[in-house]
Amino acid sequence: MLEISECDGIREIKLDRPPANALNRELIARLVEAIEGAAGAGARAVLLSGRPGMFSGGLDVPELIRLDRAEITQAWHDFYSCLKAIASSPLPVAAAITGHSAAGGAVLALFCDLRVMAEGEFRIGFNEVSVGIPMPPLIYRAASRLVGWRQAERLCVGGLLVSAAEAERISLVDELAPLDAVVARARARLEALLALPPLAMGETRKITRAEITVLFNQAEEAGEIDRVIEHWFSAETQQALNALVARLTAKRG
Amino acid sequence: MLEISECDGIREIKLDRPPANALNRELIARLVEAIEGAAGAGARAVLLSGRPGMFSGGLDVPELIRLDRAEITQAWHDFYSCLKAIASSPLPVAAAITGHSAAGGAVLALFCDLRVMAEGEFRIGFNEVSVGIPMPPLIYRAASRLVGWRQAERLCVGGLLVSAAEAERISLVDELAPLDAVVARARARLEALLALPPLAMGETRKITRAEITVLFNQAEEAGEIDRVIEHWFSAETQQALNALVARLTAKRG
Amino acid sequence: MLEISECDGIREIKLDRPPANALNRELIARLVEAIEGAAGAGARAVLLSGRPGMFSGGLDVPELIRLDRAEITQAWHDFYSCLKAIASSPLPVAAAITGHSAAGGAVLALFCDLRVMAEGEFRIGFNEVSVGIPMPPLIYRAASRLVGWRQAERLCVGGLLVSAAEAERISLVDELAPLDAVVARARARLEALLALPPLAMGETRKITRAEITVLFNQAEEAGEIDRVIEHWFSAETQQALNALVARLTAKRG
Repeated sequence: MLEISECDGIREIKLDRPPANALNRELIARLVEAIEGAAGAGARAVLLSGRPGMFSGGLDVPELIRLDRAEITQAWHDFYSCLKAIASSPLPVAAAITGHSAAGGAVLALFCDLRVMAEGEFRIGFNEVSVGIPMPPLIYRAASRLVGWRQAERLCVGGLLVSAAEAERISLVDELAPLDAVVARARARLEALLALPPLAMGETRKITRAEITVLFNQAEEAGEIDRVIEHWFSAETQQALNALVARLTAKRG
Repeated sequence: MLEISECDGIREIKLDRPPANALNRELIARLVEAIEGAAGAGARAVLLSGRPGMFSGGLDVPELIRLDRAEITQAWHDFYSCLKAIASSPLPVAAAITGHSAAGGAVLALFCDLRVMAEGEFRIGFNEVSVGIPMPPLIYRAASRLVGWRQAERLCVGGLLVSAAEAERISLVDELAPLDAVVARARARLEALLALPPLAMGETRKITRAEITVLFNQAEEAGEIDRVIEHWFSAETQQALNALVARLTAKRG
Repeated sequence: MLEISECDGIREIKLDRPPANALNRELIARLVEAIEGAAGAGARAVLLSGRPGMFSGGLDVPELIRLDRAEITQAWHDFYSCLKAIASSPLPVAAAITGHSAAGGAVLALFCDLRVMAEGEFRIGFNEVSVGIPMPPLIYRAASRLVGWRQAERLCVGGLLVSAAEAERISLVDELAPLDAVVARARARLEALLALPPLAMGETRKITRAEITVLFNQAEEAGEIDRVIEHWFSAETQQALNALVARLTAKRG
């Protein structure tokens, strides 16, 4: 599910769960472990990448749709923990968006320090609403940090995927690169950070990342995941998610 | 003053008060009524449009300048109520900016969910300061949501109108279209929202719109309208508004 | 160190301390005096400019590195006072960025009302981290106001200088002009503000500038300068600053 390698102090964590790098419970758990373990393993930075053409299609709805309330609640808590592990990592985390990046896939990238995306026909965005999931406030607010309030509203309310070119234009990603250069470019950006005086870079990073950590505290105080679960079991969301699963099954079958 | 029609669940409210769709007390009252009544009348979305070439020139200064303190205080409260009716509408509200859109006219559009503007020679902006009115904080803050703090400061302090092309570039409007396609494009954007799972879209919209509702609460707590009225009767503002009325009279005479 | 002139109500304060307009204690003190004294001297606006090709290279590290803890603490307090004098000036302050503008130089411009920069090969940015200084939160937050959170994070954490063209694209400066027209363009922008009804312009300006004053209060409450000084005497920062001084000495020697 994960292919982990290390080179020159940068730990690359490659999502490798064909076909779509769908985020199921096991992948999320391993991801948390890989990210939280990076510093202890001696890495100085983390690079999160995907399969060529596919960064991640988001949460594994076919698996999650079968869970009972306690299980899905746990799954969402684990997903938030994964996002928090990325956002509060003591090491800089780069997303090498090696292709399509939808919903939960785009959300992973959102919480990284920086994003390099494959140019071309690939799309990225927050299509949660399109598949029946109200966008959790935490994610909307984190998106606002990158693209401003209006663009975040447009993307989240509209459930939109946008082209790589538009993603760069609105600052949802920092840079585009040819598919086969995405990982190298993300790595180069991390190397540039690692070449800086580490205390100065790290202290400055703490200040900017603290803004994101605050969002997790707000989400916890507001009991945000309880609302997510409430909506999850609504008739509309169940119907939309089941329709999505039927489409995926038909496509693969 | 208003031409109201409904088609496929979208209630179009067309400002039709020649020549400039100036917002006088009656038009504001009717607008509040039309927006607040939309959901009860069975509409699923609202489209606010203007006359070809003219969305709205803003508040009807020639009428308002004659009001006494109690009357003008009421008029400003009603204008804020109108903005709040738009901002807190349970239905998505699109602005089809069919031409020139100055001061209060641009402000109406600002509080809508989305904005499509006629391309070409039309101008939009916040020229309140140019005509002697200090920009109320509520409006500056709402503008910041669309264009960011610096651009909002530049537009509001400078009392600037900008071209349609610049308005799109700084995200003050979402899209430009030929004049005769503006209403259709705004309608298409509403239809795209209405095609989404309604609970998911509506709940996400609530989160993003709540940020704007908060601004109204802040304005109320700060007694913002009292300050607006204080400035209204200052020598400078009275002189500037009277000069504006003289220019309008000369132009029409 | 400063060349002060006045024309048509605009007081131009020209930084003139060759070669790099480095901000030492005396220059900072004179700058505070010149800015705070502008209104009393009858000026209606302030224009802060530099030498052709060099706005300011930032703090005078060769001087500051020799100071003891009490002296450097005072120097940073004075630098913050200078930024606050700009940010809270009752008169609009324009930066005519006549060339290179690094670290503290860019910070001066950041707190002005508006920025016109020389086009071409000049660079501007926040390279504090590159020279071993963790970016103070106040400056990061003020930068966020201009360029949004993500760009501010990218610039500050990365210790980046960017081209004039990129600075304009991300809204770090408002306008580019040929080097010999920068002062005139900044002056024209001030004249446009001064041509507006003064109460309306001034009251609106107060609202937008209040957001920045709040940042100074936050910094004071957080004891931000104490943290700056703590870092200043860290082994890393001392080493990086000494290396910078050695480079500067070699360059000039």
